[in-house]
Amino acid sequence: MNVNKIPKKWELIEDRLHAKCRIFEVRSQHFRHPKDGREGDFYVLNTSDWVNVLAITPAEEIVMVRQFRYGSRELSLETPGGVIEKGEDPVVAGLRELREETGFAGKSTRLLSECRPNSAILSNRCHFVLAENVKKVAEVDFDPNEEIETVLVPIAEISDRVRSGEISHSLALNALFNLFLEKGLSIA
Amino acid sequence: MNVNKIPKKWELIEDRLHAKCRIFEVRSQHFRHPKDGREGDFYVLNTSDWVNVLAITPAEEIVMVRQFRYGSRELSLETPGGVIEKGEDPVVAGLRELREETGFAGKSTRLLSECRPNSAILSNRCHFVLAENVKKVAEVDFDPNEEIETVLVPIAEISDRVRSGEISHSLALNALFNLFLEKGLSIA
Repeated sequence: MNVNKIPKKWELIEDRLHAKCRIFEVRSQHFRHPKDGREGDFYVLNTSDWVNVLAITPAEEIVMVRQFRYGSRELSLETPGGVIEKGEDPVVAGLRELREETGFAGKSTRLLSECRPNSAILSNRCHFVLAENVKKVAEVDFDPNEEIETVLVPIAEISDRVRSGEISHSLALNALFNLFLEKGLSIA
Repeated sequence: MNVNKIPKKWELIEDRLHAKCRIFEVRSQHFRHPKDGREGDFYVLNTSDWVNVLAITPAEEIVMVRQFRYGSRELSLETPGGVIEKGEDPVVAGLRELREETGFAGKSTRLLSECRPNSAILSNRCHFVLAENVKKVAEVDFDPNEEIETVLVPIAEISDRVRSGEISHSLALNALFNLFLEKGLSIA
């Protein structure tokens, strides 16, 4: 149970492009254990950081989006979000995605937390932004392959919608877990 | 806000291998919108389903593992888990991973829930298994590139360890959120 038993880092010996995939790159990376010299090859996906927004209306509803997802090949109910552009602030990116996908905006916004979408194979982070007192201020502005429906979910219904499997995307679930942690809400 | 506005599925028109990456494949997939005929190309990672285990000791501790992760290039504190083998039952797979990584085993086990690790780019699911009254019954049995430290975290400390960022892997966070949902624990 000694925290220091495991070295903090394997050394990265080689890092080469394995495949370009538009929004991410697969890198083939060769690592060496700093103590015993073991070596191994690993595939890692390099991509920009992502942002996910917890946008809450004055009526205590969460602004969510439903869209077809090409990975799962099904409709998915999620918190709004997307890719942070190079040099873009996570809060600014979150509010941009919220507005593009739902037309909602809010003034009381801040960075809540972050997670690692997958420490094993992804290099990036996902940032969670809280936006309170949001209101619909504009029409939606979709990217060409986006087709997104806004769904307002009362906070009181979140637990049931997670339990039923209606909300299943790990990052949306993380965003909601963060809301419970932030607000100290009890889980009914 | 009409649930039926968005068609349930885009049609998959073409699906070809883009890159082999040992534990996953990148597929290049061409989809067509069923109503307006729009078409688009998307990269999707095909991989086996994963499992993550919430293993709880009689003293109300969660059996967690700390290991170096090649994606994030840092040590990561997570719930034990891994890849489900072809045809393997998720509960059996979870108990196998738990035993290999920590030497712990339990008799009171069941499937708790599942999530989509990333509906946008991953085709697979992650299953969450609950194992109660677990005890250390064996020595660890690591895969060649694994080096894993067992860490017993009291359930009462989980919220703080999430808030501090010590637990940051999205699937571990999902597992813990599920535990709160299952046990109706209040979040302090």
